[in-house]
This record gives sequence, C-alpha cells and structure tokens, in this order.
Amino acid sequence: MADMQALALLIQSLRSLPGVGVKSASRMAFHLLQHDRQAALRLARALQQAVEQVRHCERCHTFAEQPLCLTCADPRRDASQLCVIETPADQSAIERTGSYRGLYFVLMGRLSPLDGIGPREIGLSHLKERVGDGLVQEVILATNFTAEGEATAHAITQMLHSQGLKVTRLARGVPVGSELEYVDLGTIAHALSDRR
Amino acid sequence: MADMQALALLIQSLRSLPGVGVKSASRMAFHLLQHDRQAALRLARALQQAVEQVRHCERCHTFAEQPLCLTCADPRRDASQLCVIETPADQSAIERTGSYRGLYFVLMGRLSPLDGIGPREIGLSHLKERVGDGLVQEVILATNFTAEGEATAHAITQMLHSQGLKVTRLARGVPVGSELEYVDLGTIAHALSDRR
Repeated sequence: MADMQALALLIQSLRSLPGVGVKSASRMAFHLLQHDRQAALRLARALQQAVEQVRHCERCHTFAEQPLCLTCADPRRDASQLCVIETPADQSAIERTGSYRGLYFVLMGRLSPLDGIGPREIGLSHLKERVGDGLVQEVILATNFTAEGEATAHAITQMLHSQGLKVTRLARGVPVGSELEYVDLGTIAHALSDRR
Repeated sequence: MADMQALALLIQSLRSLPGVGVKSASRMAFHLLQHDRQAALRLARALQQAVEQVRHCERCHTFAEQPLCLTCADPRRDASQLCVIETPADQSAIERTGSYRGLYFVLMGRLSPLDGIGPREIGLSHLKERVGDGLVQEVILATNFTAEGEATAHAITQMLHSQGLKVTRLARGVPVGSELEYVDLGTIAHALSDRR
C-alpha cells in the first residue's frame, strides 16, 4: 500500500521482536494505533532510553545502568563464590531461591558455534580474569542443562582447569514435587548416579 | 532493581503489546539490548512515526496516511457495493480473493458491550451517513461469524432496515477443502439450510 508507509514500517519493525511473525506484528500495530497510542509513544521512549542507559556491569556483565550492578557493589555478598549463568533471567531465578549469597558472572549467552557465538562473545577471557582476583575460591557452573549449556560448562571447566579453583556444577536430579513415572529417563539416570 | 529503571520501564512498556506477558517482555528486552540495539531504535522511530502519520480514511475509517485511503480514492471501484468488515486485516483477506471490486467500510472493531464498545465506537452513525450517498445499493455484512460479529451484523441490519438498501451477509457453509466428518455441526446445519 503506497500510502501506508508508516504503518508498513511499524509492522516490519515489530517483527524484529523475538517470536513475532507478520500476523502478530499486524495485530500489535492495529492494537496500538487503534486503542492505545499513548502506549505506543511510551514504548518508543522506553526503547530509546534503554538503548541509551543500559550498559553492562564491569564485573559480572549483566545489564546495569551504573558501572557496577547492585549485586557486585553489595559488600555483604560472599566474594569467594562465583556463579556462572547464561542470562540475567537465570540470575533472578537463583536470587529468588534465597539460598545463594555469592556473586555472579553472566555470560549473556552460551557457546553456539552455529550462531557465531564463540568464547569471545560470551566473555570467557573476562571470566578467566575475574576469577583471578584472589578472592574467588569456587566457581559454580549454572548454565542450562541443554546441549549448548553443557558445552559451555565443559569449555569453562577446561579453561579454569589449571587455575587451582574448585569448579562445581549445579546438581542434576529429579525436580522437587515430580513423580518418577513422568520424569525423563536421562534425568533419572543422572539422579541415580549422583545419589547421596 | 533500583539501578535498572530504564530496563524495568522497557519491560513494562513491552507488556502493553497484545499477547505479551512479563516473560515474553523480558525476553524481548534482553534480545534487543543484547543482540540488536539498532532494531530497538528502528522500532522506536517507527512507533513515533506511525502515531504521527497514521490516521483514518475519512470515508471508510481504515488506517490511512492521506485523507482518503487508496481503495476509496480509486475511481475503478464499484461504488454501488459497500462491504462492512471489522478490521483492516479482514479487508486484506477479501482483497486477496480478487473477487470483490466494491468499496469497504471498516468498523475498526465490533460491538462488545462488556468491553465498552458500543455503536459510537465502531462509527455506526458514520456508516448510516456513508450508505446514504446515493450510490450505494448493496451493503454486504462481512463481520466475523463470532457471537460479537453476528450481533454487530444484526445491529447494522436493524439500523439500515428503513433505508431501502439491499443488505446481505457473507454465506456460511462448509469451508472449501474440508471433510464433512470434521466440520462442526452448526456449520453443517447452516450449509444445509442455505443450500443452493
């Protein structure tokens, strides 16, 4: 539609959101323009502001709007433990358990050679530098238990092998509240071999 | 997180998109900030531009960036037929069939009293005015075959009752390519009673 350039451009731009195809993008554009133009302007401002202000924490690489994130800047955290995770969402999940008081290193991704994500993209050399601060004694690998997460954990274990640090991995096992009958066999096998 | 106001605001703003909850919004924000800040800025500009430039066609109410949309401004369209639909997406669906050469009236919604959408919100008085232009001879009701779409079609039929116009409804029946066994009973009943 030659007279609908702004609308066409909006639909095309919404498609750059993950999981949004052309039908969802059209529905979103229709909703914003027909029912909530204020929300559209708020979103535009929030996008600009976030791009301007959100940087990475210098120590743990998570999103931060100051040089250090609140966790890294908190003197009450236990600096002898460093938990390595893939994303800020994984960090919030661990924080919500209330059972970890150490620090984090956020890879902001995982090794994925097919997508062009190698050791440099997830900051492995920074991680090596970070664990050499003289305070870290244990590195807890909490990458996901997917093929890519496991490969990432393996690569980090290899890299830290010669550093004389304790390197641990989150325990695999049967989820709390689940019935054995419905748990996949790989999980049961791991729970058996890691029994305690 | 006190130091993450811009990120929190972005996640909250993304939630105003239809079908986006807090998990999807976080994933979208993470993707844009980590992998595609250019796309975030493009989306911000597209939102602003669309809010500034996208208005409604004066005759048919669809989205347009000129006073008249391309369809209403096209002298080759048959001005004696007016097809009433709920959304611009419905209009594109009908256009793609290539079997309609008349004009449209886009309600930009449907009657939905529970959501506070009444005759005024879908411009029924403008529709009444529109069909009185001396050219329209047939009004084709192509609102959806949902409860709200049917109620809307019914209300329009009542409203145009005294205008001396031919008011028709899209045919209900068995979808092309479908097997009777799998078609719902209401559809089969309609296809039987509307047989030709």
